[in-house]
Amino acid sequence: MRPSPVIDIEQSAVAFFQTLQDQIVAGLQTLDGERFHEDAWQRPGGGGGRSRVLTDGGLFEKAGVNFSDVFGSLRPEAARGMPGDGSEFRATGISLVLHPRSPRVPTVHANLRFIRRGNTTWFGGGTDLTPYYVVGEDAIQFHRGLKSICDRHQPTLYPRFKRWCDRYFFLPHRNEPRGVGGIFFDYLGTGAEAAAGEPSAPPATDWEKDPATVFSFVRDFGEHLMDAYAAIVTRRRDESWGEREREWQLLRRGRYVEFNLVYDRGTLFGLRTDGRTESILMSLPPEVKWRYGAAPEPGSAEALSLAAICAQRDWAEEST
Amino acid sequence: MRPSPVIDIEQSAVAFFQTLQDQIVAGLQTLDGERFHEDAWQRPGGGGGRSRVLTDGGLFEKAGVNFSDVFGSLRPEAARGMPGDGSEFRATGISLVLHPRSPRVPTVHANLRFIRRGNTTWFGGGTDLTPYYVVGEDAIQFHRGLKSICDRHQPTLYPRFKRWCDRYFFLPHRNEPRGVGGIFFDYLGTGAEAAAGEPSAPPATDWEKDPATVFSFVRDFGEHLMDAYAAIVTRRRDESWGEREREWQLLRRGRYVEFNLVYDRGTLFGLRTDGRTESILMSLPPEVKWRYGAAPEPGSAEALSLAAICAQRDWAEEST
Repeated sequence: MRPSPVIDIEQSAVAFFQTLQDQIVAGLQTLDGERFHEDAWQRPGGGGGRSRVLTDGGLFEKAGVNFSDVFGSLRPEAARGMPGDGSEFRATGISLVLHPRSPRVPTVHANLRFIRRGNTTWFGGGTDLTPYYVVGEDAIQFHRGLKSICDRHQPTLYPRFKRWCDRYFFLPHRNEPRGVGGIFFDYLGTGAEAAAGEPSAPPATDWEKDPATVFSFVRDFGEHLMDAYAAIVTRRRDESWGEREREWQLLRRGRYVEFNLVYDRGTLFGLRTDGRTESILMSLPPEVKWRYGAAPEPGSAEALSLAAICAQRDWAEEST
Repeated sequence: MRPSPVIDIEQSAVAFFQTLQDQIVAGLQTLDGERFHEDAWQRPGGGGGRSRVLTDGGLFEKAGVNFSDVFGSLRPEAARGMPGDGSEFRATGISLVLHPRSPRVPTVHANLRFIRRGNTTWFGGGTDLTPYYVVGEDAIQFHRGLKSICDRHQPTLYPRFKRWCDRYFFLPHRNEPRGVGGIFFDYLGTGAEAAAGEPSAPPATDWEKDPATVFSFVRDFGEHLMDAYAAIVTRRRDESWGEREREWQLLRRGRYVEFNLVYDRGTLFGLRTDGRTESILMSLPPEVKWRYGAAPEPGSAEALSLAAICAQRDWAEEST
């Protein structure tokens, strides 16, 4: 008997994410010069993963690239707000957060996931760039790279996913975005409207109703995820910095922690459903500071960077 | 016309917390040698506060003592799970978190609050000690001090509030308590059962139904809050430490951040209801590290400390 197309995509997604982890880690090792350490782990309820971490490297103070493929039975509180029916699920994906040592090199986050609940399946993911010192050229290259991937599939994707990202990676208690954004998407390929838990989602379009179409976008996105970031790293890694820049980086990393622990749905979902804590919190920066009432001096490079972040500009439309 | 007893207690609570802030800050300045910086602030919706912070002191790397008295109209999401009716509220209280520089000196948190929603009023508060290196003598003194305050009012208070604290200051995703505990209480003086948002609350007793009785306990607790801690600080502040102890302190401070941002009701309530962010996040440690898979070497001082924390011992019953 021929397997159903849903199963085809599910198996292909697992294989794709696993291979993608290998490719990305190989590329990052070339960039950094040091090697990742791997932890393979099993989930008691079903499935497992491979966490790969690089600490105190030549470029990265901490870099984590996680692959997981877990399945079993959803608890009611985990299922609430999710598309699909029943408690049987499978979730597979890759997530990465890279924290460079140099405050001149931005932090980047990316993830891709395939989820099935009962017979309903969907893809989600995205990537966003968090510079400590915003350089227009870098933000433009990052966004243009994403736009060109999106445009190969559907011209409406980039503006919609860019806006979704701006809304999602936002800290209301600071009234600040997390960085210069990128793209964010979820519930693609199910045909369902965004689930109850996602107030920032723009309405679904026809394009995303076919899982195979969506998977071809997800593959293309995954394969080119690191292109613009690698170019930015190469351009910025040898720029000089000192104590002042390090201090600003450590304070801004505090915002990263605040976002991930207070708002990030993936993090909270993982922590509240007995996920593997060390793999979930791999995203937290290696060193962080909080200072009461810290604010950059008006007109300083730090203040200008923060203003550029807060403006949520249409980077892909700007010229270098 | 004679003011109603509820208003008497409300006004007295505001005055008490304000004076208590002065007293505690004066005591801490004597301990530290440096002075606190004060920010007085207004809340757009009604009321305001005084945040007092000491940074890079002789003893404290960061110390914050906050007084606030806010009132106005509760948003529905803020009112959910609270005793009382309607949207009109007043909340006044004091909260402090002290992060010493030395890993030999424990971090301490305390807060006291009076809340009125409509005509329903209650007190809440507590204090808990978070040592980096657990010293039995200190944990015993801290708990005995709290027990002796509680016992002056009602012999059932200490065991009940100690258990409540053990349940509240707990990180399920780490399967670890935050520290060696202390006491925690809420909804005292309302006669109502603990609100829906507080699954850790043991059932209410008759003692706590009278606001005046509860206030007399709250006053006594507030006035003696710092006694045991000051004695511990004096005993430990000159003990030597090095890089290894500092590293352990920075990693354990990560747990403090995780608790406050993922679980602490006061923090999340504040962030989600447009509270004053800098005053709410005053509790976060000044410098923190996260290291993937960090775990103390078996048998080390760090491993023994963590085991002593995880055991949630009945410190007040132990002998020095």
